[in-house]
Amino acid sequence: MTQTHATGPKLANPLTPFTLYFSLNNGLSDAAPSLQRQLSKMKGMYADDEAYRSLLADGADPLVYEFHELGIPESDGNLAFGTSIVYPGKVGDEYYMTKGHFHTVLDTAEVYYCIGGKGMMLMENPEGDWNVQEFAPGKAVYVPGRYAHRSINTGHEPLITFYVFRADAGHDYGTIETKGYRKVVVERDGQPAVLDNPKWK
Amino acid sequence: MTQTHATGPKLANPLTPFTLYFSLNNGLSDAAPSLQRQLSKMKGMYADDEAYRSLLADGADPLVYEFHELGIPESDGNLAFGTSIVYPGKVGDEYYMTKGHFHTVLDTAEVYYCIGGKGMMLMENPEGDWNVQEFAPGKAVYVPGRYAHRSINTGHEPLITFYVFRADAGHDYGTIETKGYRKVVVERDGQPAVLDNPKWK
Ligand SMILES: [Mn+2]
Ligand SMILES: [Mn+2]
Repeated sequence: MTQTHATGPKLANPLTPFTLYFSLNNGLSDAAPSLQRQLSKMKGMYADDEAYRSLLADGADPLVYEFHELGIPESDGNLAFGTSIVYPGKVGDEYYMTKGHFHTVLDTAEVYYCIGGKGMMLMENPEGDWNVQEFAPGKAVYVPGRYAHRSINTGHEPLITFYVFRADAGHDYGTIETKGYRKVVVERDGQPAVLDNPKWK
Repeated sequence: MTQTHATGPKLANPLTPFTLYFSLNNGLSDAAPSLQRQLSKMKGMYADDEAYRSLLADGADPLVYEFHELGIPESDGNLAFGTSIVYPGKVGDEYYMTKGHFHTVLDTAEVYYCIGGKGMMLMENPEGDWNVQEFAPGKAVYVPGRYAHRSINTGHEPLITFYVFRADAGHDYGTIETKGYRKVVVERDGQPAVLDNPKWK
């Protein structure tokens, strides 16, 4: 899948110093429109297809998450950054989450600093290792190179993170869309639990 | 000047996913000790030597700023990150600031996300361009490659920023220590003003 670009701030070419505001309360920016991912854009990604379909009945299409893509030129000396906001909700007993992706330049890391909400970063690499880290305000999660990463909201308010990665890292969404993740994060007795993904190929 | 390493968190080698907490209130971490820069470590860097000496009289040595150096392995796919906390204060009429540095790999950027306080990022490149951006909570400042960068607290509470840069960028403090910055940020009629640095070589 190709990454669509929102109309971002006007950047000088070559880049000169600039400032962008992202609210510490809700993650949104007055100058950088977000890319929005409604539930209809995540067909097949949740384990419970029946619950997925029923949430989209009667034309409903809830906003699952939004994030920023600023159009920073893709050189290895530049950094891309922005906020990600995953809203609270579930599809069946599986928490709202981002699609998740690998970086095309596989061995490039990403840092996520949580400024609001509660959740998890679910990660896995091509070698078959998987890992989960918890998000809470003030927690910085380090995603090393090679790890696909998906943010999951396990709480009752928006999960807001500020992220930075190398601007030339690129995004590979296709692998996850085709194979899925090894694990799912679902609610069990009111608590998040990490279980095997029945759909994983 | 060589960068000293504080005793940071134990990191796996090769890196695996991990989490570090940095308080959104004060920038400090329970798991990562900070590197502290007292005023005595900034000899000659402020314009007013007389005011500098008098602040150090009778054995006083105020803490000007602190920051984190986590010991992330210096590869071009890794990212270094942490918080910087510049305390409020002045040397004469010049606001408390960090030493400032170039990156050794000159063409590597850095992103600073302000989570508290008020101030400026003062930047200049070897070509002679200089630039100032304002910090306030929620403002992300982009420092492009080639620009030396110095954080300055122009307010009355700690200036707290969360920063991310390529782990192999390296630090060149020596150029600034020898030549100084082209500009200084001083208080004039109760407001910050950017003036030529009388000491600049
Ligand atoms: Mn990423
Ligand atoms: Mn730097």
